Amino acid sequence: MISPKDYFDPKDLWIFDHDDLLSLEIGAGILGTGGGGNPYIGKLRARQLLDEGYTLSVLPHQKIHDDALCVSVGGIGAPVVGVERLREGREGLRCIRALEAHLDVTVDAIACEEIGGSNSMEPLVVAALTGLPVIDCDGMGRAFPEMQMTTFSIYGHSSTPSAMCDVHGNVVLFQHAVSELWHERMARACVVAQGGASTLASAPMTGAFVKQFGIPNSYTQAVSLGQAVRQAQKNHDDPIEAICKKENGKKLFTGKISDLKRHLRGGFVRGEVQLVGIDAHHGETGSVLIQNENLVFFHDGEMECCVPDLILVLDVDSGEAITTEMLRYGQRVAIVALPCHGLLRSREALDVVGPKAFGLDGVVYTPMKGS
Amino acid sequence: MISPKDYFDPKDLWIFDHDDLLSLEIGAGILGTGGGGNPYIGKLRARQLLDEGYTLSVLPHQKIHDDALCVSVGGIGAPVVGVERLREGREGLRCIRALEAHLDVTVDAIACEEIGGSNSMEPLVVAALTGLPVIDCDGMGRAFPEMQMTTFSIYGHSSTPSAMCDVHGNVVLFQHAVSELWHERMARACVVAQGGASTLASAPMTGAFVKQFGIPNSYTQAVSLGQAVRQAQKNHDDPIEAICKKENGKKLFTGKISDLKRHLRGGFVRGEVQLVGIDAHHGETGSVLIQNENLVFFHDGEMECCVPDLILVLDVDSGEAITTEMLRYGQRVAIVALPCHGLLRSREALDVVGPKAFGLDGVVYTPMKGS
Repeated sequence: MISPKDYFDPKDLWIFDHDDLLSLEIGAGILGTGGGGNPYIGKLRARQLLDEGYTLSVLPHQKIHDDALCVSVGGIGAPVVGVERLREGREGLRCIRALEAHLDVTVDAIACEEIGGSNSMEPLVVAALTGLPVIDCDGMGRAFPEMQMTTFSIYGHSSTPSAMCDVHGNVVLFQHAVSELWHERMARACVVAQGGASTLASAPMTGAFVKQFGIPNSYTQAVSLGQAVRQAQKNHDDPIEAICKKENGKKLFTGKISDLKRHLRGGFVRGEVQLVGIDAHHGETGSVLIQNENLVFFHDGEMECCVPDLILVLDVDSGEAITTEMLRYGQRVAIVALPCHGLLRSREALDVVGPKAFGLDGVVYTPMKGS
Repeated sequence: MISPKDYFDPKDLWIFDHDDLLSLEIGAGILGTGGGGNPYIGKLRARQLLDEGYTLSVLPHQKIHDDALCVSVGGIGAPVVGVERLREGREGLRCIRALEAHLDVTVDAIACEEIGGSNSMEPLVVAALTGLPVIDCDGMGRAFPEMQMTTFSIYGHSSTPSAMCDVHGNVVLFQHAVSELWHERMARACVVAQGGASTLASAPMTGAFVKQFGIPNSYTQAVSLGQAVRQAQKNHDDPIEAICKKENGKKLFTGKISDLKRHLRGGFVRGEVQLVGIDAHHGETGSVLIQNENLVFFHDGEMECCVPDLILVLDVDSGEAITTEMLRYGQRVAIVALPCHGLLRSREALDVVGPKAFGLDGVVYTPMKGS
């Protein structure tokens, strides 16, 4: 057995500064495909820790030791609740400590469940408070609404025992779930009872597993994507174009939100966005189905892109993401599709994150063109 | 520290036989005030264990050692689910083992959350499987729908960490709840997600605490009550009269069920029973409000008896209880009130189990006459 200090080399760490956080806010917001928690709120929390002298550090994906115990952590709940009821701040830390006490282990590194939205920030916050690094990867390469929808779960990791903490101080341990879906069901019911926005840390994974099944370089990708958008904004270039170029994406539609149905059901934000085309798409219509995240885009009634590929609803001028809880009538948006990571396109992955998993029975996934 | 074997003296044990189970089924059914789980189903489970050679044993309340670790266990959920979806059988055992592993302790005795209904049987089942005795007391002296409604909780015991197990094999630990009500909220949400009928074991109590705040001699009371009813049935005496005599009770009404509203909401059976008087009560009306259990009895529109006193809906001929999920249009019933134990009548108890705790704002509790 080696010492925990040998699990990674401190000189490999990428130490976050305020500029990185600004870029991450924008990049993770875009990769959040409408969800993953409000990235602005997440950034404020991370920034406060930086200001208080904490270190936010990221370790390259391939540098984590095979035997390191890595715990992924993230917010659970509905984004529409998360923007109104702020976290207390140490929920994630309490999750880690509860897991450590329950399993009698010491956690070596923090992993990220989903790079999208505020859930990119939560691991940084927990890492800062514990003095551990976050591994530069995640379990989604985007955001998804349900817990079993991670590459970790898809490729065989059992996410229980897990620990869930809320703003009040309640601590629940899901000691054993007979399947990943049962874990999701029970945790979802519990987060609704806790008020709709809590934090969950899943069972430890080995470094070797995270290296094999984590979607690599998520933080690098999100920060550099945010940098590209900020650069385009600064140079008065088209940020939408910059995003498509950087991420091999495709602009599908430009339109104005003409109708919006959005409601909170079973702990999720669900609904549909109706769009009328503007500019090159004048006379056309579009619509987006949502469950916390954007699931499917229909163009003139035809499905044009669906999960697990990324459907972005972006402000047409700034290129920044509009999360599903911030959608409003009249907003002018660009719909952009990005290809998802290959780990999400296997048959076992599509069973969990493809259109059928969201009850979209009539929709067949075909990888977006050009990817 | 003394050996666990010294925590009780085996010669003090009351070893249950089939006849005791038959009496307990009837007596606990009556004390269940309509709920606590279907006693018939509970009896079948206990009887099966007896037939398989297990020992069902009860230890006098005052004989447990002050330092013994006592864990109360019971079914949680809606009785109307419990009669259709039977338990797997070892849920309670799994709860005890999960708690023992989590806390690194050994449980010395099983306590009873509620003597009413099937929840009188659950501790016997767990005790049989673990080889431990059940203490002759309980936390309600009847049945109540919510977990915080025990004398253990009312008089200061924190019921977390607790363990909840379902028929599927899921295990959830409520490691910490900021209040007993929060524990109830989270556990209720979880049991709904698990299908509406699970088993929960609460945090260990000391023998000294159980002796002080448990409602004493519950098993003795339930079995002897059942014996009295069976005796009356055998002798063609009036069993209703036998119950009133034995328990210092009062018959309030005799009627026929003329209407019944019953639905499952938030994991509870809720509703209202309408009665038209028969025999001595011809021309009068009655109604009973229910939340798993019978909460209030109105006689000609006036409140005549309410929680925490016991409101029994009994088959007018057999004297046996009709649980809330078995109520049917046209049944001929006697409404009987029994005084609750003094531990439920203190101000702190009435805050938790009085009419206000059930949202019955217009109802003021006055102890039933003659008690």
